[in-house]
Amino acid sequence: MKKRIFILLNQNRFIIEFIYMLIILNVIALMLESFVSIQEQYGVYLHYFEIFSVVVFTIEYFLRIWTADCDELIKGNSFVKRIKFIFSTYGLIDLIAILPFYLPMFLALDMRIIRILRLMRLLRIFKLGRYSKSMKLIGSVLKETRSDLTVTMFTCLILIIFSSTLMYYIEHAAQPDKFRNVGYSIWWSVATVTTVGYGDIYPITPLGKLLGAFTALIGIGFVALPTGIISSAFVARASKKHLKAKTKCVCPKCGHHFHM
Amino acid sequence: MKKRIFILLNQNRFIIEFIYMLIILNVIALMLESFVSIQEQYGVYLHYFEIFSVVVFTIEYFLRIWTADCDELIKGNSFVKRIKFIFSTYGLIDLIAILPFYLPMFLALDMRIIRILRLMRLLRIFKLGRYSKSMKLIGSVLKETRSDLTVTMFTCLILIIFSSTLMYYIEHAAQPDKFRNVGYSIWWSVATVTTVGYGDIYPITPLGKLLGAFTALIGIGFVALPTGIISSAFVARASKKHLKAKTKCVCPKCGHHFHM
Amino acid sequence: MKKRIFILLNQNRFIIEFIYMLIILNVIALMLESFVSIQEQYGVYLHYFEIFSVVVFTIEYFLRIWTADCDELIKGNSFVKRIKFIFSTYGLIDLIAILPFYLPMFLALDMRIIRILRLMRLLRIFKLGRYSKSMKLIGSVLKETRSDLTVTMFTCLILIIFSSTLMYYIEHAAQPDKFRNVGYSIWWSVATVTTVGYGDIYPITPLGKLLGAFTALIGIGFVALPTGIISSAFVARASKKHLKAKTKCVCPKCGHHFHM
Amino acid sequence: MKKRIFILLNQNRFIIEFIYMLIILNVIALMLESFVSIQEQYGVYLHYFEIFSVVVFTIEYFLRIWTADCDELIKGNSFVKRIKFIFSTYGLIDLIAILPFYLPMFLALDMRIIRILRLMRLLRIFKLGRYSKSMKLIGSVLKETRSDLTVTMFTCLILIIFSSTLMYYIEHAAQPDKFRNVGYSIWWSVATVTTVGYGDIYPITPLGKLLGAFTALIGIGFVALPTGIISSAFVARASKKHLKAKTKCVCPKCGHHFHM
Repeated sequence: MKKRIFILLNQNRFIIEFIYMLIILNVIALMLESFVSIQEQYGVYLHYFEIFSVVVFTIEYFLRIWTADCDELIKGNSFVKRIKFIFSTYGLIDLIAILPFYLPMFLALDMRIIRILRLMRLLRIFKLGRYSKSMKLIGSVLKETRSDLTVTMFTCLILIIFSSTLMYYIEHAAQPDKFRNVGYSIWWSVATVTTVGYGDIYPITPLGKLLGAFTALIGIGFVALPTGIISSAFVARASKKHLKAKTKCVCPKCGHHFHM
Repeated sequence: MKKRIFILLNQNRFIIEFIYMLIILNVIALMLESFVSIQEQYGVYLHYFEIFSVVVFTIEYFLRIWTADCDELIKGNSFVKRIKFIFSTYGLIDLIAILPFYLPMFLALDMRIIRILRLMRLLRIFKLGRYSKSMKLIGSVLKETRSDLTVTMFTCLILIIFSSTLMYYIEHAAQPDKFRNVGYSIWWSVATVTTVGYGDIYPITPLGKLLGAFTALIGIGFVALPTGIISSAFVARASKKHLKAKTKCVCPKCGHHFHM
Repeated sequence: MKKRIFILLNQNRFIIEFIYMLIILNVIALMLESFVSIQEQYGVYLHYFEIFSVVVFTIEYFLRIWTADCDELIKGNSFVKRIKFIFSTYGLIDLIAILPFYLPMFLALDMRIIRILRLMRLLRIFKLGRYSKSMKLIGSVLKETRSDLTVTMFTCLILIIFSSTLMYYIEHAAQPDKFRNVGYSIWWSVATVTTVGYGDIYPITPLGKLLGAFTALIGIGFVALPTGIISSAFVARASKKHLKAKTKCVCPKCGHHFHM
Repeated sequence: MKKRIFILLNQNRFIIEFIYMLIILNVIALMLESFVSIQEQYGVYLHYFEIFSVVVFTIEYFLRIWTADCDELIKGNSFVKRIKFIFSTYGLIDLIAILPFYLPMFLALDMRIIRILRLMRLLRIFKLGRYSKSMKLIGSVLKETRSDLTVTMFTCLILIIFSSTLMYYIEHAAQPDKFRNVGYSIWWSVATVTTVGYGDIYPITPLGKLLGAFTALIGIGFVALPTGIISSAFVARASKKHLKAKTKCVCPKCGHHFHM
């Protein structure tokens, strides 16, 4: 019985797709709530849907804890397996998905914290991660290139800090309200190296514009380096697949030709 | 006779280029109509040209239906072949290219629908697809990388939804008119991850700017991942071509010529 | 004598670098002229420099015509060789570099045309092309990928036209002064697909924003496709160089191992 | 003794990480100083931290000079080795990191120069370069592709100059305050080709918009070319690593194990 529920939750197409849909509908509901007219007219139905979702997710959560000892990939006795599930990434995500609903019932919380709790429903989106096997491709490419990407990111961080601190001291006198402190110029620097360029903050002095131009040009490297790293990972993956297909070999001892 | 018309329509250089030009001139005419001064002075000629185009496209459409049974690539008897053509992609595009002209003659439509019908003339641009064999290259590369690109797009969609919903709840209090609902913050999010950054909407609170900076940095991945995937497809295509072109070898010992 | 001048002009390091510097100084002078304070104070020196440059370029031009028959890469008799040089790309650039100075002396031209003639001095920058052998790398990569890039550009052009015409009809009613005609919406479309996004023109209606978001996402492909094509050309060039270095071969006839 | 200090400074994990942390804290302190409220409340502590840092960096600097003769990678006698260290890149960076603190003690400097001296503390960030071995990856890739990247940069510089000078003469009449001189239009040109597009300056005349659209399209090449060059370098590096990692083979006929 327990075994069957475990298989149902993890392999049954219908149940997986039902929970998948429910997660997506939850995110859509959260987005719809922000529309005043919809909130006024259909707010009550959104609330019913929220209760329904929490009930389903709560049942799912406790069933997952209960059946955690059926997972043969995790070592340990039944109790250890359940504790391991509760503190696993998806175990915590499942808890966070329902906790914000129950907390205000047991604790006297002020409105601000309740609002943040309500927003935490957005984290339900990460429950999707359990089902998307296809997302592993991006994950594996990013993992392979992690060390290279980290170095690039760190270099860029240094450049952002250097450029934004310098820009603050150059532009502060001319635009004290725009470049109020280094925080503001970091915002400018990020908007520039990512080439977003909202136009809410930009240098106006000749020296500031010179630094701005260099920062914008660095931004090209900021795009080109990660793209190059990721491209090479995809190329390597593709050529590995191609090499596996067939390689001609000649044995240096007996001269036998064969494919590998 | 029917066979000859079928060949004329599909293989005759002159007729193909004539229809090709007519499609392009139609799109240019539609663009010119938007200029008030041109519309006033030459509007009547544009109307004559429209009538001329519709007549040509109508004749082309019926000739294509009539000669559809000459197409040996489609199976079935004459009637089935014609029905298949009518409901094929290009058959429907050909119909949509002329229908908006005839509909107001037979039906009493209000101005708004007529205006939309007039705009549907823009869809004539897709008639070009029939002739451009060279566009198949891009098509084949995009097709090869479709599954990878879809996963990337889906991940980015999740990130856009996550970032924009969060941004709405962060910025709504500070800028209730700009971040009116999640729809507005999705618009902000797309403008940021694609690094367009018009500057009509952007975060102003410190927390919002922090999220904005992260979204902008995610935007680099949003550009880098598809570029990497497409690069690797082009590299694979180029190396496949290279491998096919076998290298000529001459053995320096026995002078035997062979390919490798 | 003539042969020696031909070699001096084309191979002498000193003369080549002198003309190279003179071209760059000319462009700098043209840029400096735009600064009112510099024009007022040093305008007369800039004028002297202009006269000096034109004298040098004129002498260079006539020496090149005179010595054109020494060029053994061009076929024909002396007269044919000279005519061929005059109508070659660099021959015409050399002429355009000096003509705007002499024309107002012989013809009565109104101020507007004289101003355009003065601007044509900017074309002197292309005289640099004669000396930069290193620029041939980019040229060769762009040449190799020309057909792929052309197809991409053409597809993007179609998408720009489609998106901007549609946007005009969607946004014209809401922003008649911004989206005045399709010309304005093409400007918007180019700024969006290239992800520049100045923010002078953008959609404000929900439907327009939806189309704008799709256009911005297409813009990623607009960057990713050419980057992929160019990347693959550079990769192919690098691997070709690598393959040339050494490939192990086994003769299928006599079994001799050798490098190629 | 001297040898031990040399090893401590260059190989001892604790001392290296202490100086590493101190450099980062210095940059953070410099950033915090720009916040008025922090400067008012904690300014005195930031000043104490500054004195502490300078003392540490001064001791480090003199110890490095003193122990410079222990470095066996540098040739020459003790005196020559020390002079070589003082004028090496990191020797000068170490000096610049402390000099701005001592100079105002010995010289009567006006406020403006003192402010610039204070800003020079930002250069302490480059002391980090001594410790980051991982940054060598990016360095080596950029070094390999240096000649290609230089050519690309030079070409782009020419295009920026051409486009901005032309734009000045086109737009100056329509927007004399925005396109005041070529300097302003270079700022526009950089913002456009890097696709930042702040929106503080853009063409408004039809001719200017046409040139602007072309410049924006050139901007795609400006991103695509360096990305392609860097991608190919990463691909080459990855395939070299792959080739080095010889594949293990087993001959299916004689069972001989060999590498390929």
